[in-house]
Amino acid sequence: MQAVVIHAAKDLRIEERDFKGLRDGEVRVRIEFGGICGSDLHYFLHGGFGAVRLREPMILGHEISGVITQVGPALDGVATNLKTGDRVAVSPSRPCGKCRYCRAEKFNHCLDMRFYGSAMPMPHIQGAFRQELAVDAAQCHPISRDVMPQMAPFAEPLAVVLHAFERAGSVAGKSVLITGCGPIGALAVLVARAKGAAKITAVDILDPVLKVAETLGADHMINAQQTSDWAKKYAKDKGSFDVMIEASGSADAVLSGLEVLRPQAVLVQLGLGGTAEVPLTAIAAREIEMRGAFRFHKEFAQAVAMINEGQLNLAPLLSATFGFREANKAFDLAADRTRSMKVQLDFS
Amino acid sequence: MQAVVIHAAKDLRIEERDFKGLRDGEVRVRIEFGGICGSDLHYFLHGGFGAVRLREPMILGHEISGVITQVGPALDGVATNLKTGDRVAVSPSRPCGKCRYCRAEKFNHCLDMRFYGSAMPMPHIQGAFRQELAVDAAQCHPISRDVMPQMAPFAEPLAVVLHAFERAGSVAGKSVLITGCGPIGALAVLVARAKGAAKITAVDILDPVLKVAETLGADHMINAQQTSDWAKKYAKDKGSFDVMIEASGSADAVLSGLEVLRPQAVLVQLGLGGTAEVPLTAIAAREIEMRGAFRFHKEFAQAVAMINEGQLNLAPLLSATFGFREANKAFDLAADRTRSMKVQLDFS
Amino acid sequence: MQAVVIHAAKDLRIEERDFKGLRDGEVRVRIEFGGICGSDLHYFLHGGFGAVRLREPMILGHEISGVITQVGPALDGVATNLKTGDRVAVSPSRPCGKCRYCRAEKFNHCLDMRFYGSAMPMPHIQGAFRQELAVDAAQCHPISRDVMPQMAPFAEPLAVVLHAFERAGSVAGKSVLITGCGPIGALAVLVARAKGAAKITAVDILDPVLKVAETLGADHMINAQQTSDWAKKYAKDKGSFDVMIEASGSADAVLSGLEVLRPQAVLVQLGLGGTAEVPLTAIAAREIEMRGAFRFHKEFAQAVAMINEGQLNLAPLLSATFGFREANKAFDLAADRTRSMKVQLDFS
Amino acid sequence: MQAVVIHAAKDLRIEERDFKGLRDGEVRVRIEFGGICGSDLHYFLHGGFGAVRLREPMILGHEISGVITQVGPALDGVATNLKTGDRVAVSPSRPCGKCRYCRAEKFNHCLDMRFYGSAMPMPHIQGAFRQELAVDAAQCHPISRDVMPQMAPFAEPLAVVLHAFERAGSVAGKSVLITGCGPIGALAVLVARAKGAAKITAVDILDPVLKVAETLGADHMINAQQTSDWAKKYAKDKGSFDVMIEASGSADAVLSGLEVLRPQAVLVQLGLGGTAEVPLTAIAAREIEMRGAFRFHKEFAQAVAMINEGQLNLAPLLSATFGFREANKAFDLAADRTRSMKVQLDFS
Repeated sequence: MQAVVIHAAKDLRIEERDFKGLRDGEVRVRIEFGGICGSDLHYFLHGGFGAVRLREPMILGHEISGVITQVGPALDGVATNLKTGDRVAVSPSRPCGKCRYCRAEKFNHCLDMRFYGSAMPMPHIQGAFRQELAVDAAQCHPISRDVMPQMAPFAEPLAVVLHAFERAGSVAGKSVLITGCGPIGALAVLVARAKGAAKITAVDILDPVLKVAETLGADHMINAQQTSDWAKKYAKDKGSFDVMIEASGSADAVLSGLEVLRPQAVLVQLGLGGTAEVPLTAIAAREIEMRGAFRFHKEFAQAVAMINEGQLNLAPLLSATFGFREANKAFDLAADRTRSMKVQLDFS
Repeated sequence: MQAVVIHAAKDLRIEERDFKGLRDGEVRVRIEFGGICGSDLHYFLHGGFGAVRLREPMILGHEISGVITQVGPALDGVATNLKTGDRVAVSPSRPCGKCRYCRAEKFNHCLDMRFYGSAMPMPHIQGAFRQELAVDAAQCHPISRDVMPQMAPFAEPLAVVLHAFERAGSVAGKSVLITGCGPIGALAVLVARAKGAAKITAVDILDPVLKVAETLGADHMINAQQTSDWAKKYAKDKGSFDVMIEASGSADAVLSGLEVLRPQAVLVQLGLGGTAEVPLTAIAAREIEMRGAFRFHKEFAQAVAMINEGQLNLAPLLSATFGFREANKAFDLAADRTRSMKVQLDFS
Repeated sequence: MQAVVIHAAKDLRIEERDFKGLRDGEVRVRIEFGGICGSDLHYFLHGGFGAVRLREPMILGHEISGVITQVGPALDGVATNLKTGDRVAVSPSRPCGKCRYCRAEKFNHCLDMRFYGSAMPMPHIQGAFRQELAVDAAQCHPISRDVMPQMAPFAEPLAVVLHAFERAGSVAGKSVLITGCGPIGALAVLVARAKGAAKITAVDILDPVLKVAETLGADHMINAQQTSDWAKKYAKDKGSFDVMIEASGSADAVLSGLEVLRPQAVLVQLGLGGTAEVPLTAIAAREIEMRGAFRFHKEFAQAVAMINEGQLNLAPLLSATFGFREANKAFDLAADRTRSMKVQLDFS
Repeated sequence: MQAVVIHAAKDLRIEERDFKGLRDGEVRVRIEFGGICGSDLHYFLHGGFGAVRLREPMILGHEISGVITQVGPALDGVATNLKTGDRVAVSPSRPCGKCRYCRAEKFNHCLDMRFYGSAMPMPHIQGAFRQELAVDAAQCHPISRDVMPQMAPFAEPLAVVLHAFERAGSVAGKSVLITGCGPIGALAVLVARAKGAAKITAVDILDPVLKVAETLGADHMINAQQTSDWAKKYAKDKGSFDVMIEASGSADAVLSGLEVLRPQAVLVQLGLGGTAEVPLTAIAAREIEMRGAFRFHKEFAQAVAMINEGQLNLAPLLSATFGFREANKAFDLAADRTRSMKVQLDFS
């Protein structure tokens, strides 16, 4: 079997790996498609991010889907009902189930998380950009026959976004601000619409990106580079927005948000980034709620359900698909925000 | 009638004022006691805070209690059941009831709030450090005969703290961190205990203040000036605290808190202050919730209920009581954190 | 000024009443339209309901809108910004603001509620089916010029339904069951759709009523009289619905609902009715939440906002409009569920 | 190894069983103590309950604790940190992790739950009243050396009660009604106290049971058989209680509760029982929330934490301990509510 392996910044190789067989409770999945995520790009461009650095070769990838080719014997008669031939989206969330946070059902904060393609622990957690994968049945979520196969890997970033909205509380009838409109912010536009937001305002620094946000249903688009004082207009009467999904990791976005959010509004911090010089009095006196959102767990099943029911128009997000042997080309395109949203690899 | 009037920093005078009679729905209250709050002190010491500056003489005070001496005719047969002779705590929260935020029942964010003793609007909202006051029946909360009269004005700061705990969510069985242990932080210790907190850790920079926190029920006391690296010990395993009540307004306290809070912990920002250079990735990846808390509305009634039921041991918070004609002495003592917690004026 | 006055069952008269002038904080409204509600019909058909009986003549009506003709002097400079000529929907919710429940911001449970057109207290609370009304500014919610005037009185039943959804929690992505599809149930279909429900199933015992539900966006329609065992199909795998809005007050509907709701589903009981023989083990073991919903308060402003933004297609709900002098004809039509949904009176 | 096996009503035997060895992720536990629960009693007295009937011999028991005697090799280096010699409480909650409800983190509603000692599925799920047990590491919760070993099995019923309070929402400062004061209701008294309830009223039909409730901290005790009209007094002004924990399964208790609960109060239905003729209008108009509570999952860890920290005085609940070979005597005593609360078996 072959896999997409990162050795160092800009050193991405196609290499042979063994398939190690099934353990109790596992099924074998032949991977079809894999989406390139921002963290994959960080390894590719910079060899890591912050304190997290590549210290050994690592298979990349965690947005994946495929077809079940074998079901282990231990799964007979279990409520899973997975069978050979099923197309599935595979959740990369693999909490230990035993630590303090797992026992409190805060699985995304597991102390022993084995999220695919992460250089945080040593040895690194190998990723899922490979032709074959043994996965726990609980990670497999069947995709309907009616769904275009390339839509399946979107379950992962969609789960990230659904978790952010879980953190945000209801947006129905509310005015929603989304800062940063790459794949995550763009999915946030779709989800805000599906959850009944009254008005969606999208902010980014690139016009092509905002164009996609408009296609997906944003009501107002703001280029924060061209209109750097955009916040002023929305700040009167104690603010204009009830909910903000911050998907840029930019301090400017956060600080503008604190000016334009209404009293008791919720700012969901999804973007990772540096520091922001937050005015404590604004937080206190307007009773803003700033809530972090990180990965997901149960939301993966919800994401698959929404994809199966066709609730979201995901097609405009898919920019291109490359055979996995052309991974370097695919990563180059994915790195260019002016030309691409989501780029996928084809493993079949 | 006489009143305590601030003209400028350090220029506090006792002056004569008229009593203007009752309007529909009002009762007349002879004030007994008034507590000096941090904002009163700001006007006294600095003539204001931030952009808020004294532009005309203003009666100070908003933590008050007294006895009803007259009930207006329009109140006959109303469910209020207030009568002459009742001792009442008077809520200073006077929202307009008509603006966007009042209609959404976010009364503490009223666009026309007439909170006693505030120089924010012009003309200023005159305060309640005076011998007589006409107040709306809805502001009056009867105090039980069993309660020592000086405890009644504590309803106001207690309402502030109860609102902060309303924002925090349940603390039962949880590990609570309180930073800044002046009157507000000290009340937070009492309330955390009453609401079933498992462990309470109090942080301040003055030992006498921490001593009071201990008396009130804090389990651990930390002097952040003497042990500046205290956070290190509490940061392991992703943190040690579930809830933090930030009552200091200090950036150091906020940043230490972000290190020692567990995933999905809640930081209630109650202290007003400058800016803090917040690491966005800590907020996002540990899913911290930073929520502002500002004033109160419905919590005033809860505060009075707790005082009437004797649920809290408030006595250690009362440092001294001065006749209102000695207001300058009282304010000088209140300004010295090493020697006082709450200082009251006696108007009777 | 003339008013629509009920004297006893089937004894509805048009009578002359005086306009009593404005009190502090009030505006004068010339009524344009009034919708006939189920409780109005109960007085008309039966002289009351349950223990509530007419004991003196009473003006009916509480779903009303009109145009402001005078603004009292006490309202100058207040954040309300109401002015002569504004079209407004008038909220009939008039809590006392002073009782235990008002102080806890549970205004719909006010002990002294003066909801228009109610025979519960004696003297009765006179209603709003009249040509002129003096109302508190806080009750007035401006209607946009773009909205067809007849849509304005729908703010009241819509507020009832929005409160029910507030009680229900989020319905986004969920499977919603609505039992009883008269005006309230029909509005529930619209609101469920607007708030992102994935699937809406509507149950009633009349086909014409279900036809309207379909027009408004219900996905499945069930005639519970023709298919009395409909629940069986939806009961497997521990149930099919996440949220149920019960708007019929029928025990059959409640008991069927308990069979088809999933674990931890929410059943909002909006319909008033008799008793239902509830199986305690079903509630306990499947952890159903049965929550009452009654009237509204802050939701009136939300309802007006949704009407102003054109979020809901209300037109199919309006069956007919009669001049108020033809009130008897209007009430006869409103009483016939096979021929009408909402019937309005025109006071202009 | 020996086990306590039920063959039919009143036919309880001590029999030999094999220990089958450890699977991946499991540890071996030598059982020390086991508490007899209401469902164990139902099998013993009646051979089952409702439709659930014994169809083959079944080991009873699910409230157990013991000492780890072997840790499987697959657990090396996992965050669990369990080691030989640790005393542990063993959670009987064994959801499949793969079904629809597990994926939604509603583990207590698992479609394939293997809760110890249940005759619901066929073959029955064998219980834990035996000398040796192989359990998944995630089921094991270490008990502190400071805790009396007999307190460890209380983790299970305490988890049931903590889950009920999770369903109830905060009780801090509230007035709590507990109906049915056997072991579950008695634990509810302790938990309500620990979580800051202002007032606790306990209702039962036996004075000795109420006596224990008083010892544990109830403020008022009501014998509902002697004072059958007790509800009348508490029904005025729309009710007296904010939260009710219904642990009797009696229709009388539920109906009395609906009379004495305040608007928007929460009734947690924990007791299993027959039907109750619920007045729909009371639910709707007073907006009562009736919420089921069933078993637990994450609350087991919380229960152990509270036991380890000594937050609850459990000792008054333990009536007697018998060697497991005297199981028949133990079950006879446990069946007599006038003479016992919790009866334990000793397996060491």
